[in-house]
Amino acid sequence: MTELRRSKIRGEWVVIAAGRAKRPMVVEPTEPCVTDQGADACPFCVGNESMVPPEIYRVGGPDGAWRVRVVPNRFPALAGGKGGKSLSPSGLLQCREGSGAHEVVIETPDHKIQLADLPEGQIEAVLETIAVRARALMESPEHHYVLAFKNHGREAGASLSHSHSQILAMPVVPEVVRRMLSTASTYYESEGRCVFCDTLAEELRAERRVIDKADGFVTLAPYDSRIPFEIAIYPLEHACDFTSIADAARRGLARALKRALGRLRRARGDVPYMLVLQTAPNPRSTSDESTGWETLVRAYHWRFELLPRTTKLGGVEWGTGVHINTAPPEEAARALREAGVDA
Amino acid sequence: MTELRRSKIRGEWVVIAAGRAKRPMVVEPTEPCVTDQGADACPFCVGNESMVPPEIYRVGGPDGAWRVRVVPNRFPALAGGKGGKSLSPSGLLQCREGSGAHEVVIETPDHKIQLADLPEGQIEAVLETIAVRARALMESPEHHYVLAFKNHGREAGASLSHSHSQILAMPVVPEVVRRMLSTASTYYESEGRCVFCDTLAEELRAERRVIDKADGFVTLAPYDSRIPFEIAIYPLEHACDFTSIADAARRGLARALKRALGRLRRARGDVPYMLVLQTAPNPRSTSDESTGWETLVRAYHWRFELLPRTTKLGGVEWGTGVHINTAPPEEAARALREAGVDA
Repeated sequence: MTELRRSKIRGEWVVIAAGRAKRPMVVEPTEPCVTDQGADACPFCVGNESMVPPEIYRVGGPDGAWRVRVVPNRFPALAGGKGGKSLSPSGLLQCREGSGAHEVVIETPDHKIQLADLPEGQIEAVLETIAVRARALMESPEHHYVLAFKNHGREAGASLSHSHSQILAMPVVPEVVRRMLSTASTYYESEGRCVFCDTLAEELRAERRVIDKADGFVTLAPYDSRIPFEIAIYPLEHACDFTSIADAARRGLARALKRALGRLRRARGDVPYMLVLQTAPNPRSTSDESTGWETLVRAYHWRFELLPRTTKLGGVEWGTGVHINTAPPEEAARALREAGVDA
Repeated sequence: MTELRRSKIRGEWVVIAAGRAKRPMVVEPTEPCVTDQGADACPFCVGNESMVPPEIYRVGGPDGAWRVRVVPNRFPALAGGKGGKSLSPSGLLQCREGSGAHEVVIETPDHKIQLADLPEGQIEAVLETIAVRARALMESPEHHYVLAFKNHGREAGASLSHSHSQILAMPVVPEVVRRMLSTASTYYESEGRCVFCDTLAEELRAERRVIDKADGFVTLAPYDSRIPFEIAIYPLEHACDFTSIADAARRGLARALKRALGRLRRARGDVPYMLVLQTAPNPRSTSDESTGWETLVRAYHWRFELLPRTTKLGGVEWGTGVHINTAPPEEAARALREAGVDA
């Protein structure tokens, strides 16, 4: 069992997960992206299913094959337990059990094809799988927050090259998320509107940072981009919870995501990136929240963040949280618009 | 002039600094540490003084030579201006001029010697220089927060290998710092003591995470370490402000810092690292602070953070601020204790 320790002074949680150091290929990378690993050694490939713990979920294909598969992470950051029992040695040193769940979504049986190149229908199946698993994990009120994310390339933290996403169910709502929820709620209570909806309306008027608008989604370079070519994908229609996305919206999202990944590659090459789903916390576990679900439904807005990793963080970022971004989002948006989309 | 944009939803500031993309060697690294650059091309070497803007400060040596030199950063993240005039296009898109100052402290005339190998007296001269320049920058109430930091190795954001630190004077107190100040003040108001002093006392009792205690300083692996082999160096005697450090304490700090860097290298090799000074904000610019200086003097505690960069951040860290650390600080502290110090 891992530990969740809380920084008294920063307010943030840290997962102490010694077992994860044993992951294969966790050593320093020399290449930004890894696609040269022999398929016979890949635990995510067809035929190697026994290399990983028993399957949790699958989207089936013809003849008993699978198209998308969900398995437990072999080196979970959080797993098992019942709501993260406190292990604090004192009020100053705060700790609880690293309970929760950590799953891997294998996005394709094909070892050589990455998310950006999957057919739209396959990306849709991946998104549906994430929604299904996140909903299932939120059946338990012990899972206060369910994070879906993808690390592509070693610079973005990936340790295996076979295209996959991850789902992490956490026994706490992270401070960063909590602050975003709180800001959105405060704005809603003062303005009566969603801060994200208002920002989208303003960005669509300004146009300069908009990359794409189609199929019910808007893709933009955020005004406050932390790193070069940061991208956000928002549903135009207000919704706080990704996991209850309707079929038509999921199809639109698959298209928007494929276009965004394609534009990024055309503009910047096959750079490492992270993809992060920002969505509402588990409505079944709002007991420790200052904001009730009724407000969040109106105040919060789910979205995907696409974060290319082509620069290094230094002392300013680590010491103060202030990011120094050398690429104005207005220029990134223009480059991404002009890059066009794959045929 | 750069721009400081504020994230409405995250509360954090971002510096948009297009000019910094023109820095030499800002492209992707392949080596963790760079020491092979020809000295004749190095703007920080003796004889190349004209490659950088006019000197701001120096610690002189014999015969008109310099031992430590401070010059303006040629690619400043923040510079000039008067208190960061607001440029906000709207209440949702918040922006102000990137005013402030960005200086480089050249730590030695010798291109080939890194901070860990400088004699204690030279490290002391570097620390004195940082204190002198930070004090000078804080003469202006426009400089709300003065950050001193060092990026060693390209993985830690360094773009030049000649040993140097940086000082960044900011027209705002970063949110991360503001929250630490607020937590410390709240603790002080409820307990009547400094939260850092209390934590140090507890860590000294527990012993497991203590790496060193000598010369008035304690070096430890923080209970809530975000990354493997994170190290903190605290003065044992309470003080909120590094810049007013006494001569004897500065000598002790130079020794503690040299020992910590030596232990890290003996345990882990010449890994990239960041060194960050966490200290109180400018007392002359507390107008936008919720906490007054009188409380901070008693509630806050300066320290150095030493952050080795040997792992990658992924979607969990970027999306939620929760760090997954594969090296328990108890084990890191033991390894660093057992590594011993350089003769």
